[in-house]
Amino acid sequence: MTVETVSSAKSFGGTQGVFRHRSRETGTDMQFGVYLPPQAEAGAPLPVLYYLSGLTCTHANVTDKGGFQRVCAELGLILVAPDTSPRGADVPDDPDYDFGQGAGFYVDATQAPFSTNYRMYSYIRDELPELIEGNFPADRSRRSITGHSMGGHGALTMALRNPDRYRSVSAFAPIVAPSEVPWGEKALGRYLGPDPAAWRQHDTVALIESGARVNEILVDQGTSDNFLDQQLKPERLEAACREAGIPLILRRQSGYDHSYFFISTFMEDHLRWHWERLQA
Amino acid sequence: MTVETVSSAKSFGGTQGVFRHRSRETGTDMQFGVYLPPQAEAGAPLPVLYYLSGLTCTHANVTDKGGFQRVCAELGLILVAPDTSPRGADVPDDPDYDFGQGAGFYVDATQAPFSTNYRMYSYIRDELPELIEGNFPADRSRRSITGHSMGGHGALTMALRNPDRYRSVSAFAPIVAPSEVPWGEKALGRYLGPDPAAWRQHDTVALIESGARVNEILVDQGTSDNFLDQQLKPERLEAACREAGIPLILRRQSGYDHSYFFISTFMEDHLRWHWERLQA
Repeated sequence: MTVETVSSAKSFGGTQGVFRHRSRETGTDMQFGVYLPPQAEAGAPLPVLYYLSGLTCTHANVTDKGGFQRVCAELGLILVAPDTSPRGADVPDDPDYDFGQGAGFYVDATQAPFSTNYRMYSYIRDELPELIEGNFPADRSRRSITGHSMGGHGALTMALRNPDRYRSVSAFAPIVAPSEVPWGEKALGRYLGPDPAAWRQHDTVALIESGARVNEILVDQGTSDNFLDQQLKPERLEAACREAGIPLILRRQSGYDHSYFFISTFMEDHLRWHWERLQA
Repeated sequence: MTVETVSSAKSFGGTQGVFRHRSRETGTDMQFGVYLPPQAEAGAPLPVLYYLSGLTCTHANVTDKGGFQRVCAELGLILVAPDTSPRGADVPDDPDYDFGQGAGFYVDATQAPFSTNYRMYSYIRDELPELIEGNFPADRSRRSITGHSMGGHGALTMALRNPDRYRSVSAFAPIVAPSEVPWGEKALGRYLGPDPAAWRQHDTVALIESGARVNEILVDQGTSDNFLDQQLKPERLEAACREAGIPLILRRQSGYDHSYFFISTFMEDHLRWHWERLQA
């Protein structure tokens, strides 16, 4: 698998790179960001945190605005930031911001015309880690995952379905019950078809209700987030975790919104939280 | 003077705002960013650091990518990020990125058609501080200034010409001798006219050679900066400061480029450096 360097910049003693490769899953060129901390030069494998982004984002949003490089450099943690969907003139799209390109929802679509390219679940679960571990000093036994909004949904569902693959999972303002909210109903309906039974494998609350488990979950949620009541519904995650006995740290952060000003404020806490669990 | 709030987001316990006002100097609406640290709620006046941005930038680049909010919140430091020029359909522009809108060079233009709107020197020196000190808990006796590239040029020339107005000055990869480099020759020639004698008041090295003084200067410069040899020439600043006896801390940062990955890495050092001098 060939990985092409799109850009590379020194940052906090390490290297913030952007890379491109031809994806077998999506059938398109995909870009992703990788921050290699200074410890990577020694060559010993380092733990990796995957950060899944939200609607409309590419790898660039968290890479430019997330402020993770300083703490990753201190800890010796690699951060990988994938794109949120396949892209290109030949990839089916939609005029709305919340469906199509930039809005892959981390599923493998089953419905035409999306099923050919929209395979973000397999891309994030299998193809990207193979690529990272084959091309960077990444420890294949120490992966964790986090994400924001649609990416928080991606991180939680990925970890719940593959608890052996991730040491820990956290999220910033995640969509936790997509089957029950407008963003999710639209996306899952068109990617997976109209039968909500097919959506349950991509719905955090439904997965927990069906028996999926992780050791614990850390979530930060701003109380001034415009999407809180209609799309995010953290109380649904709270109830599901309580019922299932999953330890959930849900921090309602007073006055914070849905932006990267919120994410960057709490990024350091998430990085250190994952780091502790990646040492175990 | 009316200041309109464009946006406001909680960040590291403080507030990152963007504001708009009608400028008497430029004759246009101008936007700027203000980070108010949590200490601002107590109402006592806080010191202010002005950050002048580089070519093509608005207030948004450093606000989104500079990573200053965490340290400003710790210290109790206000950071003000102005735009780099007047903007609007009626403002004379140029198709090139390095002249016209986004490239005001912090001068008061004397040449038509630019002289009506391009008054960034007076805007930054007089109008903006009046506005900040009239509308925010800003201490009018404790201002410092920094900037990047064209904005480093702005910070250095502003401090050298007005040493009583700024407690300290620093810069990231500044243009130090615009009279001698392509970016500066183009901009100063068109804003100030063809006679290089008129450029000396907007040229850091020329100002120092003519007797202008500040207490000390901190500069970070990446050694992998694409603009280093042709546009930035830190050795010219080094020679002028040596000759004039101005203490210059010029740190050549190995492998860093001209981007915000460079700036954000060293932002904390600059904030703490100014903070010490703002306490005196």
